[in-house]
Amino acid sequence: MSRLFSPRAVSEFGVSLFIAAGARPRDAEATVASLVTSSLMGHDSHGVLRIPEYLGQMAEGKIVTSAEVSIERTGPGTAIVDCGHGFGPVGAQRAIEEGVAIAKEQRTACIITRRCNHVGRLGAWVQEAADQGFLALATCNSPVYGHFVLPFGGREPRLATNPIAYAAPTGGDPIVADFSTSVAPEGKIRFYRNQGQSVPDGWILDSEGRPTNDPNAFYGPPRGGILPLGGSAGHKGFAMGLLVEILGSALAGIGPQDPHVVGNGTCFIVIDPSAFCPLDRFRKLMDETVAYMKSSPSAPGVSEVLVPGELEFRTLRKRRETGIPVDEATLQALHEHCGRLSVDAALAASAQSSRD
Amino acid sequence: MSRLFSPRAVSEFGVSLFIAAGARPRDAEATVASLVTSSLMGHDSHGVLRIPEYLGQMAEGKIVTSAEVSIERTGPGTAIVDCGHGFGPVGAQRAIEEGVAIAKEQRTACIITRRCNHVGRLGAWVQEAADQGFLALATCNSPVYGHFVLPFGGREPRLATNPIAYAAPTGGDPIVADFSTSVAPEGKIRFYRNQGQSVPDGWILDSEGRPTNDPNAFYGPPRGGILPLGGSAGHKGFAMGLLVEILGSALAGIGPQDPHVVGNGTCFIVIDPSAFCPLDRFRKLMDETVAYMKSSPSAPGVSEVLVPGELEFRTLRKRRETGIPVDEATLQALHEHCGRLSVDAALAASAQSSRD
Repeated sequence: MSRLFSPRAVSEFGVSLFIAAGARPRDAEATVASLVTSSLMGHDSHGVLRIPEYLGQMAEGKIVTSAEVSIERTGPGTAIVDCGHGFGPVGAQRAIEEGVAIAKEQRTACIITRRCNHVGRLGAWVQEAADQGFLALATCNSPVYGHFVLPFGGREPRLATNPIAYAAPTGGDPIVADFSTSVAPEGKIRFYRNQGQSVPDGWILDSEGRPTNDPNAFYGPPRGGILPLGGSAGHKGFAMGLLVEILGSALAGIGPQDPHVVGNGTCFIVIDPSAFCPLDRFRKLMDETVAYMKSSPSAPGVSEVLVPGELEFRTLRKRRETGIPVDEATLQALHEHCGRLSVDAALAASAQSSRD
Repeated sequence: MSRLFSPRAVSEFGVSLFIAAGARPRDAEATVASLVTSSLMGHDSHGVLRIPEYLGQMAEGKIVTSAEVSIERTGPGTAIVDCGHGFGPVGAQRAIEEGVAIAKEQRTACIITRRCNHVGRLGAWVQEAADQGFLALATCNSPVYGHFVLPFGGREPRLATNPIAYAAPTGGDPIVADFSTSVAPEGKIRFYRNQGQSVPDGWILDSEGRPTNDPNAFYGPPRGGILPLGGSAGHKGFAMGLLVEILGSALAGIGPQDPHVVGNGTCFIVIDPSAFCPLDRFRKLMDETVAYMKSSPSAPGVSEVLVPGELEFRTLRKRRETGIPVDEATLQALHEHCGRLSVDAALAASAQSSRD
């Protein structure tokens, strides 16, 4: 069960907790805002439920609250953003800001991060660039402890779910795509296991490399693996996942099995469309492109063709009215952090309504 | 049936034909070399069988043999390469050369083409960048006449098979990935139809949006469509195909249904790894990454894990020894062009051997 809360109530509460745990106010506000926006857009897995997780990481020192982000401009069009193991969203925000700033000068930019904690919803950062009239691509890998995904044809995992995101401005909401390069994220398999259900065909192999629907055969031990996107054409999903790994590790000077690396290795590529086409015309052509995609009649059982991000912006508008859902486990975890940090546990009382 | 020919014999023969058809020697050599290399690497669909196709397009004026490629540097990190409807491989070659030249200065570059005919194997161009120590990504769309692929959830095609390619240097052969963002290319469905066979599950829908294995239900009329990569996660393949469309059309100032556009809309992004990590170290880390991927034991029925491009480089080494296969239909078409252009039809006599 979840209860619905106003985004403002959750934000104020989260910021109070982060500050009590040692975060600078501006870092607390930026990080909580990014998590609340993820919940507003329907990405609950990257939303408010991460607030207690981040609080735990602050207590353990995995998130360094005193970290300063430093930027090294390594070329006219490139920069390395060292996040110092501070808040991932703070580092990612600085990285995309630097990408946009460089793209304003050079018309294109490539930025990588180092020592960057979990950046949250990857699509959020490319969306920021699109809001300013830029095209942006982002990739995000995880180190060896996150390697759940099989190389095509293999039976031992070698990659994380390695998402790719991109965003492009239009005359209205931007296009925002954000997807893992595996057939499914690990969290969905955990969900099926917790529900005692089978996972769909084509998602996982057991440790012997045999197809299975049993989520326990994936978790083992011995561990199985999640298949790359594409089924019998899974070499394509593997190629994309490998690209994300290259941009997140090798390009940052990090080995693929380095046991000391934590967090996300991200790469942002920013392009100024006006280097090729006046921005107004680009927006108009994007609107035509969206309309052309959506003009395809839908297949049986499908209500309409949706472009990437469309559902998220609809959810955003709805949840701004109805509030955002927070599940009981997250409320309980927040309550415990309130006790530990001597913060008034006022959130639960502010629930607007409940829902299953 | 195919016959095997030495790459040199095919190249000399193809260049003679192209020159007789009005091509400048340097354009003939570059174009034929790219097609022969595609055949050497096993991409027969983008190889020698295109020689008669290109000759036909030269005769029709679709390939403008007198075209000059012109390059407009639109920003420190960007350029537009206008190929003037000349040979696609000549335009693509100039585009990637410009990308590498800009990346040497700026450490990253973004190049688009306009009025570019069929570029052949997209992976060839990113491979050229990797051979010089650069990371490169490429996308390639086709205009409305090539729209065979369904948007996710739709039943009328709105995209071409829109391939993505990337390449990265290693200590040995580069990684070279090159794949369509649909579940299968249209040519494979044509192959099944020509053989009178059913296509695999999950490839195509009929014009009513129903799954089918009948290739004739795809071709219609009324036309069905090819599904985007990803099966039930086909929103991911659709998102990638849409990215390729955006970079190939809207970014070039072209509408998604413009009936006057012909050829490929390509975009190249080039990154200098040494902006982030010394090149020697990057190569070493890439070797470690490849070794780590390949160290995964293989699933039942699979002999080994292959990284993108590995099979192609093996085929290249083999076919340099054994020759490249040319099918009878292509030989016949070449023979007809020989008659038309008064070129000595010497190729067939030079066959090294036959194979089925």
